Amino acid sequence: MSDEATVSAHLLSAQPNWDLDRVVAGLREARDTWRSAQRRGRDFGGRELPSRSALNEIAAALCGALFPMRLGPADLRQESEDFYVGHTLDAALNSLLAQVRLELKYAAREAPSSPTELELRAVEIVRSFASLLPAVRRLLDTDVTAAFNGDPAARTVDEVLLCYPGVLAVIHHRLAHQLYRLGVPLIARIVSEIAHSETGIDIHPGATIGESFFIDHGTGVVIGETAVIGNRVRLYQAVTLGAKRFEQDADGNLLKGAPRHPVVEDDVVIYAGATILGRITIGKGSSIGGNIWLTRSVPPGSHVTQANTRQEVINDGAGI
Amino acid sequence: MSDEATVSAHLLSAQPNWDLDRVVAGLREARDTWRSAQRRGRDFGGRELPSRSALNEIAAALCGALFPMRLGPADLRQESEDFYVGHTLDAALNSLLAQVRLELKYAAREAPSSPTELELRAVEIVRSFASLLPAVRRLLDTDVTAAFNGDPAARTVDEVLLCYPGVLAVIHHRLAHQLYRLGVPLIARIVSEIAHSETGIDIHPGATIGESFFIDHGTGVVIGETAVIGNRVRLYQAVTLGAKRFEQDADGNLLKGAPRHPVVEDDVVIYAGATILGRITIGKGSSIGGNIWLTRSVPPGSHVTQANTRQEVINDGAGI
Amino acid sequence: MSDEATVSAHLLSAQPNWDLDRVVAGLREARDTWRSAQRRGRDFGGRELPSRSALNEIAAALCGALFPMRLGPADLRQESEDFYVGHTLDAALNSLLAQVRLELKYAAREAPSSPTELELRAVEIVRSFASLLPAVRRLLDTDVTAAFNGDPAARTVDEVLLCYPGVLAVIHHRLAHQLYRLGVPLIARIVSEIAHSETGIDIHPGATIGESFFIDHGTGVVIGETAVIGNRVRLYQAVTLGAKRFEQDADGNLLKGAPRHPVVEDDVVIYAGATILGRITIGKGSSIGGNIWLTRSVPPGSHVTQANTRQEVINDGAGI
Amino acid sequence: MSDEATVSAHLLSAQPNWDLDRVVAGLREARDTWRSAQRRGRDFGGRELPSRSALNEIAAALCGALFPMRLGPADLRQESEDFYVGHTLDAALNSLLAQVRLELKYAAREAPSSPTELELRAVEIVRSFASLLPAVRRLLDTDVTAAFNGDPAARTVDEVLLCYPGVLAVIHHRLAHQLYRLGVPLIARIVSEIAHSETGIDIHPGATIGESFFIDHGTGVVIGETAVIGNRVRLYQAVTLGAKRFEQDADGNLLKGAPRHPVVEDDVVIYAGATILGRITIGKGSSIGGNIWLTRSVPPGSHVTQANTRQEVINDGAGI
Amino acid sequence: MSDEATVSAHLLSAQPNWDLDRVVAGLREARDTWRSAQRRGRDFGGRELPSRSALNEIAAALCGALFPMRLGPADLRQESEDFYVGHTLDAALNSLLAQVRLELKYAAREAPSSPTELELRAVEIVRSFASLLPAVRRLLDTDVTAAFNGDPAARTVDEVLLCYPGVLAVIHHRLAHQLYRLGVPLIARIVSEIAHSETGIDIHPGATIGESFFIDHGTGVVIGETAVIGNRVRLYQAVTLGAKRFEQDADGNLLKGAPRHPVVEDDVVIYAGATILGRITIGKGSSIGGNIWLTRSVPPGSHVTQANTRQEVINDGAGI
Amino acid sequence: MSDEATVSAHLLSAQPNWDLDRVVAGLREARDTWRSAQRRGRDFGGRELPSRSALNEIAAALCGALFPMRLGPADLRQESEDFYVGHTLDAALNSLLAQVRLELKYAAREAPSSPTELELRAVEIVRSFASLLPAVRRLLDTDVTAAFNGDPAARTVDEVLLCYPGVLAVIHHRLAHQLYRLGVPLIARIVSEIAHSETGIDIHPGATIGESFFIDHGTGVVIGETAVIGNRVRLYQAVTLGAKRFEQDADGNLLKGAPRHPVVEDDVVIYAGATILGRITIGKGSSIGGNIWLTRSVPPGSHVTQANTRQEVINDGAGI
Repeated sequence: MSDEATVSAHLLSAQPNWDLDRVVAGLREARDTWRSAQRRGRDFGGRELPSRSALNEIAAALCGALFPMRLGPADLRQESEDFYVGHTLDAALNSLLAQVRLELKYAAREAPSSPTELELRAVEIVRSFASLLPAVRRLLDTDVTAAFNGDPAARTVDEVLLCYPGVLAVIHHRLAHQLYRLGVPLIARIVSEIAHSETGIDIHPGATIGESFFIDHGTGVVIGETAVIGNRVRLYQAVTLGAKRFEQDADGNLLKGAPRHPVVEDDVVIYAGATILGRITIGKGSSIGGNIWLTRSVPPGSHVTQANTRQEVINDGAGI
Repeated sequence: MSDEATVSAHLLSAQPNWDLDRVVAGLREARDTWRSAQRRGRDFGGRELPSRSALNEIAAALCGALFPMRLGPADLRQESEDFYVGHTLDAALNSLLAQVRLELKYAAREAPSSPTELELRAVEIVRSFASLLPAVRRLLDTDVTAAFNGDPAARTVDEVLLCYPGVLAVIHHRLAHQLYRLGVPLIARIVSEIAHSETGIDIHPGATIGESFFIDHGTGVVIGETAVIGNRVRLYQAVTLGAKRFEQDADGNLLKGAPRHPVVEDDVVIYAGATILGRITIGKGSSIGGNIWLTRSVPPGSHVTQANTRQEVINDGAGI
Repeated sequence: MSDEATVSAHLLSAQPNWDLDRVVAGLREARDTWRSAQRRGRDFGGRELPSRSALNEIAAALCGALFPMRLGPADLRQESEDFYVGHTLDAALNSLLAQVRLELKYAAREAPSSPTELELRAVEIVRSFASLLPAVRRLLDTDVTAAFNGDPAARTVDEVLLCYPGVLAVIHHRLAHQLYRLGVPLIARIVSEIAHSETGIDIHPGATIGESFFIDHGTGVVIGETAVIGNRVRLYQAVTLGAKRFEQDADGNLLKGAPRHPVVEDDVVIYAGATILGRITIGKGSSIGGNIWLTRSVPPGSHVTQANTRQEVINDGAGI
Repeated sequence: MSDEATVSAHLLSAQPNWDLDRVVAGLREARDTWRSAQRRGRDFGGRELPSRSALNEIAAALCGALFPMRLGPADLRQESEDFYVGHTLDAALNSLLAQVRLELKYAAREAPSSPTELELRAVEIVRSFASLLPAVRRLLDTDVTAAFNGDPAARTVDEVLLCYPGVLAVIHHRLAHQLYRLGVPLIARIVSEIAHSETGIDIHPGATIGESFFIDHGTGVVIGETAVIGNRVRLYQAVTLGAKRFEQDADGNLLKGAPRHPVVEDDVVIYAGATILGRITIGKGSSIGGNIWLTRSVPPGSHVTQANTRQEVINDGAGI
Repeated sequence: MSDEATVSAHLLSAQPNWDLDRVVAGLREARDTWRSAQRRGRDFGGRELPSRSALNEIAAALCGALFPMRLGPADLRQESEDFYVGHTLDAALNSLLAQVRLELKYAAREAPSSPTELELRAVEIVRSFASLLPAVRRLLDTDVTAAFNGDPAARTVDEVLLCYPGVLAVIHHRLAHQLYRLGVPLIARIVSEIAHSETGIDIHPGATIGESFFIDHGTGVVIGETAVIGNRVRLYQAVTLGAKRFEQDADGNLLKGAPRHPVVEDDVVIYAGATILGRITIGKGSSIGGNIWLTRSVPPGSHVTQANTRQEVINDGAGI
Repeated sequence: MSDEATVSAHLLSAQPNWDLDRVVAGLREARDTWRSAQRRGRDFGGRELPSRSALNEIAAALCGALFPMRLGPADLRQESEDFYVGHTLDAALNSLLAQVRLELKYAAREAPSSPTELELRAVEIVRSFASLLPAVRRLLDTDVTAAFNGDPAARTVDEVLLCYPGVLAVIHHRLAHQLYRLGVPLIARIVSEIAHSETGIDIHPGATIGESFFIDHGTGVVIGETAVIGNRVRLYQAVTLGAKRFEQDADGNLLKGAPRHPVVEDDVVIYAGATILGRITIGKGSSIGGNIWLTRSVPPGSHVTQANTRQEVINDGAGI
């Protein structure tokens, strides 16, 4: 055999060596550096956090329980609708309870509670959440109707429920918002991000949204934590309801927590690409044109459009 | 044991109670409210609709059958390419037939047909769809070539097929468009939304698109139901080909169905973020600049750019 | 039985016929047309390419190995962190080796190498990649800190790591960038597209990005292949760092390869929807306002905002 | 490169060829030979048969519905027991309906029926089966109690239900027997074989078995189609209740259908390895010793043991 | 449409009705009857029991940790053997801890303990079990060697480990026996039954078995709870080491718990189908012939064979 | 909080410690002991062996390819039978090639070959195996017919193919036997054990079996490596065709390799539980009764039954 062939044969039968011990040690050191920078002992790091994959399954189950004949299993029949709803809810709520325990324990690292207190709160949160589900369904029905009425391409309410990413995002938001209100903001955020990843629509679970809400197409929509949206509001893709830039404290750190996103009153329509920033108010019945950049309040009934985006149109026939 | 410990022990061994009977009843009432508002009897709601997860598998199988060595199984060899294509198609078409039956039955709730008629139509739709696949593949080859030619970062046509979300979206669109034309618009829409969720590119299955079509990056692109796109057209991310706002009938309801999206002629390029609205025509060989907001037709060979977006540049050195 | 019933019975028991032989032959002909146009023999097409689903698993495993207690398995305990990291890395690196072999073989179709050379290079690439992981983790820690400091809505660094799509995209980018540098650009691109599909953030693996990088919300962000980004840079959703249009050679073909995307220096903030095109430089400490369209360099410390987007506000009370 | 290395390189990069076309053709010819020998046209062979994997899931679901807290999901709570049972039954019965349709269609190849008749019968079979389930559960409770009482190693009735293969086999038998009685013997047989494969206990679904039946250990037990077993019978491993050999008709063919297996009356115990053949009767309260070979009836109260299996015991100390 | 066709159409579109409410109620009543017969309140039934599917995964993981290069993942390399073993053990032990908690809680329904006591015991059981694993591996190595030496068909020790059901059964037994000794007999029994189902070999976890133990073929072997087996013992298929029948107490109930299975001393061979019953002793170095039925002790060095099973050989040429 | 509660709280929040480092080290030492006893260096142990789970999938795929309409996918239609067969075979043969490579490499540790030789042999083995499949199918058709003709309970040939474990075992045997003959005995053995585990029928892949072979019920059947079985032979459950005991060489080791199992000529029937040992011949057309223990040859046409197993029948009425 030639040298080449010998080397080749050796290579093909031998196992490569990754110098794993050194890589593993390097990663451990990097973690230790981080943990000491974060002032976290060994003990701290061991606490578990809520799991995205578990919440993925919980969210899917809740969608099925809310709309059993549309988002439930393909072979569901009306005769057993309640059986399905009850069984699915039970499994989802038990699983949610486990996630809530994890978040409460995690939060308790700074405000210690007894295990009993944590357990009582966890059960109470899940029980309250469960009791809110019928109201959430009724609210979502107004959203579905709004989507059907708001899009000329929609043929039936069922198509809306099956196909529209905006509806999917709103279902997740309405669930996430209740979780946020009940005191598990991290779980709420993960539920929101599940929809964000699926639809490109980023609604912070803290946002307050009225009935009959519709987002068409939706990719790129961003709605911030302290935004307040009224009833019968319609948004198109790439609309931002954001915070103004440069909100810093005396030390130059970004300020956390205060109301900093827009208030959008009832019956407002905001077209694609509009960017609305800061704690301003869009008055009732206003419409905001596409690509508008708005940082001050407008009174009820306003129609905001770009006054004179002069465009240069050159026709040199080059493309013909 | 202390009181605390007793409560704790009790909590840990007992099962929480979710008051499920009440929640299930509440959800049933909410459904009943909705169904009576929709004038749907018990019977109606029981009909099944096409399933997104089934169509997900069908779409993936069709992608594999169209591009076996690139989107088919990793271990496929050319010797058995036809076997793979034939077997995969057969399974996908049988599964599609089941979905088509569901949509036809659903549609028949308003225009009743005999089971025989429905079955004959369902089989005919799937058979026609199958016969169109070779033409779809040839069309897609023009798209792949256009992508390769249109992006300086593209190294090979294979990279384009494996990595480019724009290509993935166009494959799904070309399949969905045939389904739309053959009379199963709900299935078509679900296929489109599968790609929308994966790529952030939202092409309504009704849109008509010529050969050698390329969308680069793609996130945020929206193409409406009645849009008509010529040959060799190139779009960038966040381009909207939408309907104008406020198309209402005498009663204030949005009008459904009529042509309301742009016609884009051959050899047009539309840059990132451009918004083109209404039944206008972008003439052959035109280019539309980034972020342009366009609501009126432009003749062939036009180059539209923002004339004078004056920008304020302040240099206070604050960031240094 | 009536005729109708007879037909129905026949339909229900018979199997539909898809004329599969003809469809399969049509697809084969289409493939042959394509392959001869691409000057690919039978032999060529048979070569395998890297697999997205394999790289999906590899990327997820690497995320777990980098952040074991946050992105690793839910039940991981600190006692066995190193065991998990070592085992996960080993499986991921072996799997990556198989993918690297495929890309090198594919690339070798134009620059033939001996199997021995290919194998030596493949092993070397994976070994180098492994050795870089601790440094990647340290870099990512600066990104996580930047995200926490840069968003008023972020409660903890853990929330940032679990929920922020921008962080997910950056983790994938930092891995993909090393693979790109080590000579497997197709694998690198697939890893980037995994994150693009999940987050709507499209970072080409070739882009060079400094420490403490943060993208907020992120949907619609596009960062091109030759972009260079300094330290402590912050981007918002829908920011484009792209190439200028019309870069063609003498024959009208798009030019491939040369530096064509922006250089963004340290401490720059770029707000939502800004589009920055061409090989220009954004000087240190600058801020670029939302929706800005920028195609020329700005010096350090610049603040670019839209000077006078005059807006027409009509208040006719129609919406009230 | 040496010749050896060249060949090696070639081998490693080329794909082996399996001469698939010839193998596929060979298999088709073998199928055609078989089908023409069976006088089956193309049409016949296309009919589907019940699916083992579908019945596997159905059987598992029915076990869960019968014993929800023991064989149902791990996290089931009593509060939602009925929800689980109802939902699980509904899905299992719908799935069973599909399987029953297949068997009825298959059976109808020799005794044609209209689709309507087949459908009516299929629905009737499943409905009857469902209505029998509470009685099946009550019967199984007697079996569980018998197992607990009959085995000194059994600690609790729960252990018996969770661990004893004999109990698993009897659950499957009692379900299969009802299906056999209702007219779907092929489905019944598949359900029996699922348990046979799991436990090594082979009970033909046609066998009639009274209450409080217990099989201990069980591997190798065979109970024939026409066997009749009374109440409170106990069997051990490797017991055969079989047909006598050589039951042929005038032409030397084995006779099918007639009663040919034993009748075992109430309160009989049959020990490991006993073989009981033919349409004989084991009288009430008898016990049959291990390894006994019995081909004639015994009256009530008999105790059958091997009279004098003389054994040669040689002690040559060889093993010490 | 004819009547027939009308009925058919109705059948095909309508959903069958299973009268589920009645079936569910019937099953609930059956459960209630059982529970009140077992004197179990609602509360009792709600307690969970160890899960077979969880233990299935645990057992498979432990097999991998014991024999990483043979029963671990296909792509494992020696470089990362310890990483794999550590990570796999950690996950398996955590999962086992959850199962142990369930069994201890279940057992505590009759002998109540505080949650703290239960938790301490559960952790102690799992920790002890973990510490015994190296010794279990050493013992199993003697079994593998015995299998290789004892079967003329065995080519290598690796074949024995990969293929022999007897070896699989012994691995499970040695794990189950430790669990049995440590106080979780239900978990132990489920682990044993996993192997029983897979191999047809039924070894009660209570049985005590010395080193270098080999079962060839194995189907039908039964080894009882109180059996004691010495070193270097070899069994063939269908051997029973059972209890004598009729061990009843004064009230006619079967006695539970006392030693009732054979003691088999070192270096004994027992051939296929032999049945050995009761608390007898098979002396060191003995061999027991096939199909022997033995209910009394034999001294060391005995060779037991069937003395004179006279057989009738009729040669009527009928079969020729 | 009380002490008890304090401990409890601590327990519930802390993670248990398994002293993993020590357990992992203990297991490593046990492996090292074994490896040095086996004279295996680090290098040796790293070689991979064929994988049972991979062979499981290969065997299932081959069953489908042999009997597409019965063991293939539920929705297969005759129109695409060949597509399915070709695609399934291709994937199964590719996967088999990988397994064959592993066994050849493993075998080559004692008789080193060049990588080229190994690859050539591996491809040749798989190609030969593929070419034999049509003949295997024809042989299996005789087995299916024999099963149908041999069992009074069999209704159709389809039932036999779907339900009979004896048929499943023979399919696996006929595949395994070809693999054994082609020089991959370890793979062959694993395929046999897959069927053994499923059916309780243990046929060594080395056994030679003629056409029209039927095993009824089957649990406990053992057929040894060098057994030779003629045409039209029928076996019942628990029949052993084994080796005689005590075949040792001069050093007391068991002899490996030589013919040591029975020759069973054409048209023989062997009833349940019969044990036939050693290299004896059962003459053409003989029948061997149940439970017979036979260690010497019988001439053609023999009928062997137990002459006078005297049984003691005591009727004391105790059971009544």
